[in-house]
Amino acid sequence: MLGRGVWSSVRQGLSRGLSRNVGGWASGEGRKVDIAGIYPPVTTPFTATAEVDYGKLEENLHKLGTFPFRGFVVQGSNGEFPFLTSSERLEVVSRVRQAMPKDKLLLAGSGCESTQATVEMTVSMAQVGADAAIVVTPCYYRGRMSSAALIHHYTKVADLSPVPVVLYSVPANTGLALPVDAVVTLSQHPNIVGIKDSGGDVTRMGLMVHKTRRQDFQVLAGSAGFLLASYAVGAVGGVCALANVLGAQVCQLERLCLTGQWEDAQKLQHRLIEPNTAVTRRFGIPGLKKTMDWFGYYGGPCRAPLQELSPTDEEALRMDFSSNGWL
Amino acid sequence: MLGRGVWSSVRQGLSRGLSRNVGGWASGEGRKVDIAGIYPPVTTPFTATAEVDYGKLEENLHKLGTFPFRGFVVQGSNGEFPFLTSSERLEVVSRVRQAMPKDKLLLAGSGCESTQATVEMTVSMAQVGADAAIVVTPCYYRGRMSSAALIHHYTKVADLSPVPVVLYSVPANTGLALPVDAVVTLSQHPNIVGIKDSGGDVTRMGLMVHKTRRQDFQVLAGSAGFLLASYAVGAVGGVCALANVLGAQVCQLERLCLTGQWEDAQKLQHRLIEPNTAVTRRFGIPGLKKTMDWFGYYGGPCRAPLQELSPTDEEALRMDFSSNGWL
Amino acid sequence: MLGRGVWSSVRQGLSRGLSRNVGGWASGEGRKVDIAGIYPPVTTPFTATAEVDYGKLEENLHKLGTFPFRGFVVQGSNGEFPFLTSSERLEVVSRVRQAMPKDKLLLAGSGCESTQATVEMTVSMAQVGADAAIVVTPCYYRGRMSSAALIHHYTKVADLSPVPVVLYSVPANTGLALPVDAVVTLSQHPNIVGIKDSGGDVTRMGLMVHKTRRQDFQVLAGSAGFLLASYAVGAVGGVCALANVLGAQVCQLERLCLTGQWEDAQKLQHRLIEPNTAVTRRFGIPGLKKTMDWFGYYGGPCRAPLQELSPTDEEALRMDFSSNGWL
Amino acid sequence: MLGRGVWSSVRQGLSRGLSRNVGGWASGEGRKVDIAGIYPPVTTPFTATAEVDYGKLEENLHKLGTFPFRGFVVQGSNGEFPFLTSSERLEVVSRVRQAMPKDKLLLAGSGCESTQATVEMTVSMAQVGADAAIVVTPCYYRGRMSSAALIHHYTKVADLSPVPVVLYSVPANTGLALPVDAVVTLSQHPNIVGIKDSGGDVTRMGLMVHKTRRQDFQVLAGSAGFLLASYAVGAVGGVCALANVLGAQVCQLERLCLTGQWEDAQKLQHRLIEPNTAVTRRFGIPGLKKTMDWFGYYGGPCRAPLQELSPTDEEALRMDFSSNGWL
Repeated sequence: MLGRGVWSSVRQGLSRGLSRNVGGWASGEGRKVDIAGIYPPVTTPFTATAEVDYGKLEENLHKLGTFPFRGFVVQGSNGEFPFLTSSERLEVVSRVRQAMPKDKLLLAGSGCESTQATVEMTVSMAQVGADAAIVVTPCYYRGRMSSAALIHHYTKVADLSPVPVVLYSVPANTGLALPVDAVVTLSQHPNIVGIKDSGGDVTRMGLMVHKTRRQDFQVLAGSAGFLLASYAVGAVGGVCALANVLGAQVCQLERLCLTGQWEDAQKLQHRLIEPNTAVTRRFGIPGLKKTMDWFGYYGGPCRAPLQELSPTDEEALRMDFSSNGWL
Repeated sequence: MLGRGVWSSVRQGLSRGLSRNVGGWASGEGRKVDIAGIYPPVTTPFTATAEVDYGKLEENLHKLGTFPFRGFVVQGSNGEFPFLTSSERLEVVSRVRQAMPKDKLLLAGSGCESTQATVEMTVSMAQVGADAAIVVTPCYYRGRMSSAALIHHYTKVADLSPVPVVLYSVPANTGLALPVDAVVTLSQHPNIVGIKDSGGDVTRMGLMVHKTRRQDFQVLAGSAGFLLASYAVGAVGGVCALANVLGAQVCQLERLCLTGQWEDAQKLQHRLIEPNTAVTRRFGIPGLKKTMDWFGYYGGPCRAPLQELSPTDEEALRMDFSSNGWL
Repeated sequence: MLGRGVWSSVRQGLSRGLSRNVGGWASGEGRKVDIAGIYPPVTTPFTATAEVDYGKLEENLHKLGTFPFRGFVVQGSNGEFPFLTSSERLEVVSRVRQAMPKDKLLLAGSGCESTQATVEMTVSMAQVGADAAIVVTPCYYRGRMSSAALIHHYTKVADLSPVPVVLYSVPANTGLALPVDAVVTLSQHPNIVGIKDSGGDVTRMGLMVHKTRRQDFQVLAGSAGFLLASYAVGAVGGVCALANVLGAQVCQLERLCLTGQWEDAQKLQHRLIEPNTAVTRRFGIPGLKKTMDWFGYYGGPCRAPLQELSPTDEEALRMDFSSNGWL
Repeated sequence: MLGRGVWSSVRQGLSRGLSRNVGGWASGEGRKVDIAGIYPPVTTPFTATAEVDYGKLEENLHKLGTFPFRGFVVQGSNGEFPFLTSSERLEVVSRVRQAMPKDKLLLAGSGCESTQATVEMTVSMAQVGADAAIVVTPCYYRGRMSSAALIHHYTKVADLSPVPVVLYSVPANTGLALPVDAVVTLSQHPNIVGIKDSGGDVTRMGLMVHKTRRQDFQVLAGSAGFLLASYAVGAVGGVCALANVLGAQVCQLERLCLTGQWEDAQKLQHRLIEPNTAVTRRFGIPGLKKTMDWFGYYGGPCRAPLQELSPTDEEALRMDFSSNGWL
């Protein structure tokens, strides 16, 4: 039960997590995986010739593995998944599975435009080690993506997925917000466990928590910029690009929220907003990867058509971190 | 206790407020009025023939005066100010001043499209009793409303206003969000005390609090739908249409936030989201006024071109309240 | 000959116009005024101290009066009408009436936010000499401006207006396009003669012409950038900011369209697009007024909060004219 | 030379087309293919079990081959290309090549999100018979798709493509309009021959024609709704979903435009707007396929998540055709 004492139950969820069969979904009992916690959406490292650099990927994972994350999201929007072939997508998931600590969750982004392709990718990702699938809304035909169409899509995927499904709404990339009524309907599916919502509309997030309160359904913030506010309205964690470079700080913010140290949480949240915007909306993945280089990870180049930052942009990026005391 | 630190300091602010010259702006000392708290944006009652019904206005104020509001906003967007003549605008402010409790603040919306008209309206409203002016962004020429233009506009108004100025950003009506950089610059003006932000972007609100932390500058949420989240990121109150009908509940939500009772605050916030959306974005002022009729106030008709609700809409409005236990 | 049929009938319309009681609406017969042709939306000149400069206004009109315009639009968006008092609005119309040639039409923008205020302004403008009223959509409560609300608004205005009414849709300013279904309904009103559509969606314009083909209803393009295309789909003229500075050229474009010289029309249209964008969307009224100064008219300052152009912007504005051979 | 006498040169282009080496791009001479004319964007037929139905595809092509189209677009947005595997994409192109008349052009949509994948798909499509590649803007990272990024992307594709490249801007699907400055720069590439622009902004189309007038660069309208207006501003043809069902009528509209019969063109254009909107923006590919069933083609189901029309929608679709005399 998520309900009694929101924060205490979340904390219990976290501690309960240790004794659970993490990543296993016991379909017979209708139990769902608890996804509460912080996740970095892992970037995909490329060599100078734009090949996936699996070695660097593993090195990054080893470094990231030292933080108290709940797990890792692979092939969220920051993973450049639209630029990967199907086999690269699976190989990346497989490598991350091997490189990451055993007690953490691996949420793999398996969304494709067609329902059938999404089902196939979801099954394949489960086979190579994903604990859950995180499925972005199809979007190319957004004008026809009614609640009915999206409910049909996700229901089919969840019906056929061997692992739990996490909905994923990211309007900045898709031009489409998964409607709340669709979320509420889908929350009743035994194999749908939650949503990653990157839109930043906290009223909507609170409403989703409220309307799904009788389901085992969890809401994750899709960005560190509104993480504190999301906890305040009942979210249980976040998938935060910023955690790729300020992992300790994002986990600290989680802890401050979960232990009710709101004054300190607010101060920390404030200092994370500009860096977070810099590595997401303002400078995108090129900004995130550049910052990773600064913070001891391998960022490296993006695949084209994503371009590297101009010197001016790079300076502004640095300022967004330094002016908040992080560089 | 959850509430130490930020919230206790806010409470101190509130109690300190009692000994201050509330509503008076001691320009000699550069002290600013403390606007922390909850405000209903008062509606303008009309008769069946679309005349302003000052008697009903006063009756509503007497009823609203029993709640622990910090004060009243007159001629926010819910006051149908674009439909009032200049003399009606002033007469409404004057009547509210007389009808409301003496110890509360009267924030009067004085925004016009031109800077000169805004200055004149602001001065006049101060003369008829406004404690502060709440000034919406000009918007008809939004394509030219750069930060520079808006800084110029607000600076001029604040320079010439005998009462403190509150910025007002309401993109749903204006198609324009007052840029954060303009807010930060304007926060340094000795006669600008805060902003009412109705956009619902809590990342932006947190950033404004953060970047103005060295100024006497306060952020108010412009809607009850994200009030809890706004407190969490450092806002100090809200101007909430919903407070016209659920005044006790909105004030209770404030108290729960200020005393750190986050679990109860979250539950209450959840139950207020749908009713709040119903009387704002979904059904607008006609919805708010209809609900006022249900809750013992005088709502009455809107001025044209605003239309009354269809029976279907009215039923949906009622459901948004009843399904959350308010009707 | 390219121009037979549609264009010849338009020309017949123009010549028929000479024998009609232009500007008078013979309600008994249900006859409507013919508004086909080109109109500059007159700017409002201000002195250095932001007073309306009626002398300069008259001088501009005398110069503009030499072109074969169908008439003048006063207090379209380019007239800074939101910055004028009610009495200034009427005085401007009165002065233009006196300064302009007797055989031309005066379309006066009488839109206000409330239906009642719009009715009153429309009646007053007719009294000071407007041949027709051009009524912008109310927009502050755009979320409630359904087709039903807008039909109600315009019907009331048209019922009570002593002069014909022209609908006015300008989404760049209002954030609202008058829906086609509302236009079709309103086209049946005996006192509604057409629409000025500034949105630039030529599919929509063609559809309006098509769906109102059985009514006496005319469509005017709201900008010179899509004037040729508008004629091609059945519009009968345009209200063109650019005609304030390139009046001869815009009239020449009209003539080329009406006489079926499409090759030359296209070449001329092409050379007008960048200058037109410069004085409208790109640099707004400050750009238009600056260009008027260059072309022998009085442009002068705008009222605040509109700001004058930066030197960089002014250079870009000049380039948009010079690169097309106009400066 | 496109220039002298726009319409006459286009007509010459059409007649010249018969003697040209259609589909061959003589790189040595820098000659480009002439893409002027009308193209249906071919739909991809599926069986009841969602397999590509190549037989039905060929049948449709045989029927469509009787109209005077310039050629066929395969895997434009109406081809459901995001739902096809890479091998399906190629097989469809190959089958269309075999089924279509030899003297027509095959423009194959080869756009992918990454530059590298787009290059590979373009090369492969040329190998299976595409005369030119039509390349949609990458869009998932639209926030980073600056002019510079898009110029880099298209330049790389055009450098490496064995067939000419047509740019493709379709903001309804991508949330992104290819900026005019990028189009102008790219028009100078010897292997980029034109743009299919589906945005419907005819001012923009005219500007593109104007700014590329010194290049061998052609503009195609991306929809039948603004086809006449596009010809008027200098476009040389269109890729029109409606041509899949009203092929004769769309070709007739072309002919009326090219022969200067503007009155008849306008009347025909008017009657095509609602049917066109119905099979594009209003009801999407499900609407187009349903209509194909009515008009003697094989429409059939879409791949999920696209849903079939509701009975109500189907009735509205039928009305959009019948009210204009097409059913």
